[in-house]
Amino acid sequence: MPDSLPPDSVGLVTPQTAHFDIPLALACGRRLEQYSLVYETYGELNADASNAILICHALTGHHHAAGYHTMGDRKPGWWDDYIGPGKPIDTARFFVISLNNIGGCHGSTGPTSINPDTDEQWGPDFPLVTVPDWVESQKRLAERLGITRFAAVVGGSLGGMQALQWTLDHPERVGHVAIVACTPKLSAQNIAFNEVARQAIRSDPEFHDGWYARVDAMPKRGLKLARMVGHITYLSEHSMGTKFGRDLRQDRLNFGYDVDFQVESYLRHQGDTFSTAFDANTYLLMTKALDYFDPAAEAGDDLAAAMKPISCPILVVSFTTDWRFTPSRSRELVNAMIHAGKSVSYANIDSPHGHDAFLLPGERYEAVLGNFLTRAHDQANRESAARCATAQETSHA
Amino acid sequence: MPDSLPPDSVGLVTPQTAHFDIPLALACGRRLEQYSLVYETYGELNADASNAILICHALTGHHHAAGYHTMGDRKPGWWDDYIGPGKPIDTARFFVISLNNIGGCHGSTGPTSINPDTDEQWGPDFPLVTVPDWVESQKRLAERLGITRFAAVVGGSLGGMQALQWTLDHPERVGHVAIVACTPKLSAQNIAFNEVARQAIRSDPEFHDGWYARVDAMPKRGLKLARMVGHITYLSEHSMGTKFGRDLRQDRLNFGYDVDFQVESYLRHQGDTFSTAFDANTYLLMTKALDYFDPAAEAGDDLAAAMKPISCPILVVSFTTDWRFTPSRSRELVNAMIHAGKSVSYANIDSPHGHDAFLLPGERYEAVLGNFLTRAHDQANRESAARCATAQETSHA
Repeated sequence: MPDSLPPDSVGLVTPQTAHFDIPLALACGRRLEQYSLVYETYGELNADASNAILICHALTGHHHAAGYHTMGDRKPGWWDDYIGPGKPIDTARFFVISLNNIGGCHGSTGPTSINPDTDEQWGPDFPLVTVPDWVESQKRLAERLGITRFAAVVGGSLGGMQALQWTLDHPERVGHVAIVACTPKLSAQNIAFNEVARQAIRSDPEFHDGWYARVDAMPKRGLKLARMVGHITYLSEHSMGTKFGRDLRQDRLNFGYDVDFQVESYLRHQGDTFSTAFDANTYLLMTKALDYFDPAAEAGDDLAAAMKPISCPILVVSFTTDWRFTPSRSRELVNAMIHAGKSVSYANIDSPHGHDAFLLPGERYEAVLGNFLTRAHDQANRESAARCATAQETSHA
Repeated sequence: MPDSLPPDSVGLVTPQTAHFDIPLALACGRRLEQYSLVYETYGELNADASNAILICHALTGHHHAAGYHTMGDRKPGWWDDYIGPGKPIDTARFFVISLNNIGGCHGSTGPTSINPDTDEQWGPDFPLVTVPDWVESQKRLAERLGITRFAAVVGGSLGGMQALQWTLDHPERVGHVAIVACTPKLSAQNIAFNEVARQAIRSDPEFHDGWYARVDAMPKRGLKLARMVGHITYLSEHSMGTKFGRDLRQDRLNFGYDVDFQVESYLRHQGDTFSTAFDANTYLLMTKALDYFDPAAEAGDDLAAAMKPISCPILVVSFTTDWRFTPSRSRELVNAMIHAGKSVSYANIDSPHGHDAFLLPGERYEAVLGNFLTRAHDQANRESAARCATAQETSHA
């Protein structure tokens, strides 16, 4: 490995693609006849495939969670601070899988993929997928890789919803689950912000009812606005205040609509960058997956009853200044799990960074997650040893 | 008065217009050679013009604060709960003035007015006006009406900023000042939300760089988005949750982009209504007036030093669930006034309604404001009596 990559990096990684042609029945009632998942892996799968961790991504995330694609990459994967040798998600002992979800725009089957029935992009015809749909597709990927049980499933925000869904749908297939900066369901205000983002995209004349690719257009203005409003909800008021305050970009107010304050410049830049890098139909779809997530709904709105299937230890982590999914939302989840008699640990991490804290370095957060995954590792080893002993007994019999 | 108006209403009111042709120098360096202010009055001005209260409006407000324009009006003015005989702003004893500010779109000179230099609408050429500019224009209106000193100036949100500015610029002309749901300056997050609104409007292809009137267009999509995002910040998370929760508009999810949740329907409706009723250039201008307000800036960011001119009793009111301008922002103001040795009362009103609480009925809020204005009335009476005694002494001398 070349000298210039950090020693605790997973190094250069190459995305892989798994194709599935067994139809996937979706919550919306439609089905995907075939689909591909693009994914990356870090670390080595052990002999009995007991050391795998699944990483689930958030709203605008993707499979590239750690390491570098080329030596020229300016930045590593989105969770590189947490995934690598010696890091909380320790690739010296775990085999880590990170995928792009169905509906995404980073290589997995989604709105920008070709619909085999029409030979053009799916566009707005791509079905709305839900968190349980994703879990089902992820299970198939696990099977393809020979993994029948994850040592742990880990995710933040929308990724945390997938981690939670794993323990509800396939409790026998997960040893530990970490749910970070998450909520058991979106509030009216959460939905409202998503709806503003959707309206921004859908009312952009370049949206063309979702068929923008047909006319080689892209609703960049809408995507930019969606990202700007999203970004405000990812940062805390405090971190925005500390980072920008009322600092002016120039030394005086301009009494016009050019940028006066640094925070305006920052938001415009974030929005512009995003608007050329993300697919609008994917953004719409991902926000709907957030809105629709509500595991208690099928249990008569009784969240504790909905938690009943859980059979593994759970870690819930929130951040003090997260106002998108506040600590109180995590506590709802924790309380429901306690009420249901589950083994749940909870840490509310003191951080100034708002919702974004789940992506950022933080000593206590790293320790909490790392310790939890050490227990996941120990348990997976005990299970392996037990299986091994059973197998030996059987072979000796 | 016809039977069907409520007995505690100020009844039918007719807006009036005052024209000014002495140029008004603005903070931006430009000047308005002439301008009109549309206003309403409720109650009777007493003989020595000592019982006047000025109402200052907020972001999208206007002069029609109380009563009805016609018997067919579905709704009274925007602060009708607070202005009327026996109400906190009691028209049985006060003469109440409410105006539309310069830059507005409800009759006062603003972007939709004709620019006499060009004989077309000002549009985006209308100068950015500031809170101090408005106070200066309001002072001229007061003089026109024969009022040299207000018994009180009252305002909420952006209106509260004007009320505060009055005591800083013309302390001798105000007897009492009530500043409701306000802040001494916008935070980075506040500015960020305004910037999203502005970008929504300015990036709408129908905006035409602000010259939409020339082509008979209106950036309705942008205005709708601006209103939607604004609305989220006016309501508390709690009130949105109580009002809408995750209630569906129909009995099931539609797995598409039609309205699923009631809150989406509500926001779209609010946005649509607003987008046909408000002027885009005015919206831009009003948000800039918010962003620019910062009385401490000229005092080296020392808010207490900036409060030095105040010579009258101040009431500051905040609302527990207001997250646009939180109670902590009101306390900054109160603490600065205390530090500067001013007479300030502060009430943090328990309300579930967020920022909007300042417009809504509330027993404790009404009592606090009403009691404060009773003291304003008593003081104005004492001042009148003193003037009268001085005048009699003079005439007897």
